[in-house]
Amino acid sequence: MSKYVELNEKTVVEYVNNKMDFFAPDAEYVCNEIGDGNLNLVFRVKDTKNNKSLIVKQALPYVRAAGEDWPLDIGRGEIETHILNIEYELTDGLVPKVYFYDADMYCMAMEDLDNYIIMRYGLLDYNQYPYFADQISDFLVKTLLLTSDVVMGHKEKKENVKAFINPELCEITEDLVYTEPFHIGARNDMEEALVKFHKEEIVEDEELAREVAKLKFDFMNNAQALLHGDLHTGSIFVNPESTKVIDPEFAFYGPMAYDIGALIANLIMNYISTKASLEEGQLRSKHEKFLLDAIRDVVDMFKSKALELWDEVVTDKMAKTKGFKEYYINDVLVNSAGVAGCEMVRRTVGFAHVKDLDGIANDEKRIKAKKENLHLAKILIKNRAEIVTGEEYLRLIEKYL
Amino acid sequence: MSKYVELNEKTVVEYVNNKMDFFAPDAEYVCNEIGDGNLNLVFRVKDTKNNKSLIVKQALPYVRAAGEDWPLDIGRGEIETHILNIEYELTDGLVPKVYFYDADMYCMAMEDLDNYIIMRYGLLDYNQYPYFADQISDFLVKTLLLTSDVVMGHKEKKENVKAFINPELCEITEDLVYTEPFHIGARNDMEEALVKFHKEEIVEDEELAREVAKLKFDFMNNAQALLHGDLHTGSIFVNPESTKVIDPEFAFYGPMAYDIGALIANLIMNYISTKASLEEGQLRSKHEKFLLDAIRDVVDMFKSKALELWDEVVTDKMAKTKGFKEYYINDVLVNSAGVAGCEMVRRTVGFAHVKDLDGIANDEKRIKAKKENLHLAKILIKNRAEIVTGEEYLRLIEKYL
Repeated sequence: MSKYVELNEKTVVEYVNNKMDFFAPDAEYVCNEIGDGNLNLVFRVKDTKNNKSLIVKQALPYVRAAGEDWPLDIGRGEIETHILNIEYELTDGLVPKVYFYDADMYCMAMEDLDNYIIMRYGLLDYNQYPYFADQISDFLVKTLLLTSDVVMGHKEKKENVKAFINPELCEITEDLVYTEPFHIGARNDMEEALVKFHKEEIVEDEELAREVAKLKFDFMNNAQALLHGDLHTGSIFVNPESTKVIDPEFAFYGPMAYDIGALIANLIMNYISTKASLEEGQLRSKHEKFLLDAIRDVVDMFKSKALELWDEVVTDKMAKTKGFKEYYINDVLVNSAGVAGCEMVRRTVGFAHVKDLDGIANDEKRIKAKKENLHLAKILIKNRAEIVTGEEYLRLIEKYL
Repeated sequence: MSKYVELNEKTVVEYVNNKMDFFAPDAEYVCNEIGDGNLNLVFRVKDTKNNKSLIVKQALPYVRAAGEDWPLDIGRGEIETHILNIEYELTDGLVPKVYFYDADMYCMAMEDLDNYIIMRYGLLDYNQYPYFADQISDFLVKTLLLTSDVVMGHKEKKENVKAFINPELCEITEDLVYTEPFHIGARNDMEEALVKFHKEEIVEDEELAREVAKLKFDFMNNAQALLHGDLHTGSIFVNPESTKVIDPEFAFYGPMAYDIGALIANLIMNYISTKASLEEGQLRSKHEKFLLDAIRDVVDMFKSKALELWDEVVTDKMAKTKGFKEYYINDVLVNSAGVAGCEMVRRTVGFAHVKDLDGIANDEKRIKAKKENLHLAKILIKNRAEIVTGEEYLRLIEKYL
């Protein structure tokens, strides 16, 4: 406890230089606190002379001091470090590099992504990322397949399952993604114009609820791979060349489909947003094409890369059985479509919305877009057994949007 | 460490009386060490005057002293106690009562089951247990459903998943049940007369291997309920009135089907044994009828009791969706048939056999019985989607045995 000192813009430079050789001797430092002040101090420490920078993130003293009242936050930095390190190794750098974690100071130093932006905002500015599908499908295949029983020693994998059990944050997902949006009330939040539609099309559809219940129990019980756990476009930093996945605080051992489906859903919702927000024309066509290609490629590249990597890395003897990998990956894709549908529902009528949909300025178009989103979501959930190729996603998008 | 003293037949009485008020002041003690000496000292302490007894089980000093070289044994008593206590509460006494666990002495005291016998030996003596199916289906429904996400608070359930992760003993099952019997070599053990049949009918059947791979990954990933984990007829004590399940050392959070399937398989193998060992006649008919009824009732009672209990105990909001419980229980039964098949294969050609099959004295009948067992096992694994009623088991048994 006594080793903790709250950092400030003046002391953070010396602190970092005591911990590691990162900056050159002739560095000229500029230091800014850029956090939102809720839970962490976040400093960007930059050497303007050599154009080198890093981020220092320190849990705030009152968070640290609150101890057991803040079970989510105390020690999260250590788990976040652990997961980022694992993902960094597995993906050859598709997450920010963590330089160190200091348990005494509740403090981590990591790669500065100052030439990246949050993908959601990049997409809402109609930017395209030509390497994104290739890079994120790499991320998915490597973080998921390589942490599964297909590849890992089963005892080591079970120790991981144990280490990364995450009851508090899983509960948030269980409630906000898989339960509340399919009922009336709780923390749901929707426009008045959707209340009747939500009741009739979502809440009263018993077949839909049954399929969602299956997906929910899969989420809770299927300890298949080390997930990111919150892989929407707000958890991804991009620039035109590169992709970095951040914020793995929801990570746990769960079904691979959960990461893939969340990502696909957020691409689809940006597509809906684009179509409703932009007049027809070159920009809209270009962005729509990028999104459709990305949706198709995420699905198809995940599949082809997973099937290819499987043969190189599989260790489980039964998993080597002819035809098993096709069954396994197909099953992941089936449930990915279901997850995508759940994510699209909850982002429309649940507690946490996305700017893509809420930001459609025209009231009529926004309501229409949200209804179409809910309608497609239902199709994805109910018909998921058939939705296992990029082409099928594009066919459904064309048909229902 | 210094608090550990090895007990003997003389000191164990005083030890027990210091720990608890169990025996009357006028007790007349008879004390016997009845263990096999491998890992534990096992004492039966009996008050012959008042006809009251208990069992004391103490880890042997060299096991205790071996420390990390014996990861399976040190502390297993504590976990066994924990699980027996949970199961005792859930089932209203279908496991032996644990009186205490003493961590200093690596010692537990538990209910003496001296008027019970191991079910496998009871069955091999052609005894029948008219209440068995009713009692064991109670055990299954209560231990499985009540420890699942259907009923338990999801955070508490996840803490249980973590507490009961059991990598070493799960690995034994993964290898000996789900892998080695479907390949040649390793620790497999089979009669010469089965070598060719095993190769052609089991090892070279790729469809079979694929289905077993699916079941294996379900076993490894599906943290559905707190299993017993080794529920064959050697883990069950019976007498004509009562059933007690023992030895939960393989317990972990896994698929419900694993317990149900293991039990069904062992009843089927006793049926095969009876048919091959006894001449036709009254005893054989009686025992066969008991076994067929038991197989049918275990399946049908599990189903009907689970569906009935569900409505009383379900807490998960999505699990209350109309039709979901039927889907859920059906899925458990489907995989139970698959597990039963795997258990029947491994008990015939794998490392650990059962006396039911190996004990068939006539060579020709024994080999024929084992081949029929393997054949039915394949059907159970491959056709499991259709095998969800007691009646269907009886139809297959009639057809293939």
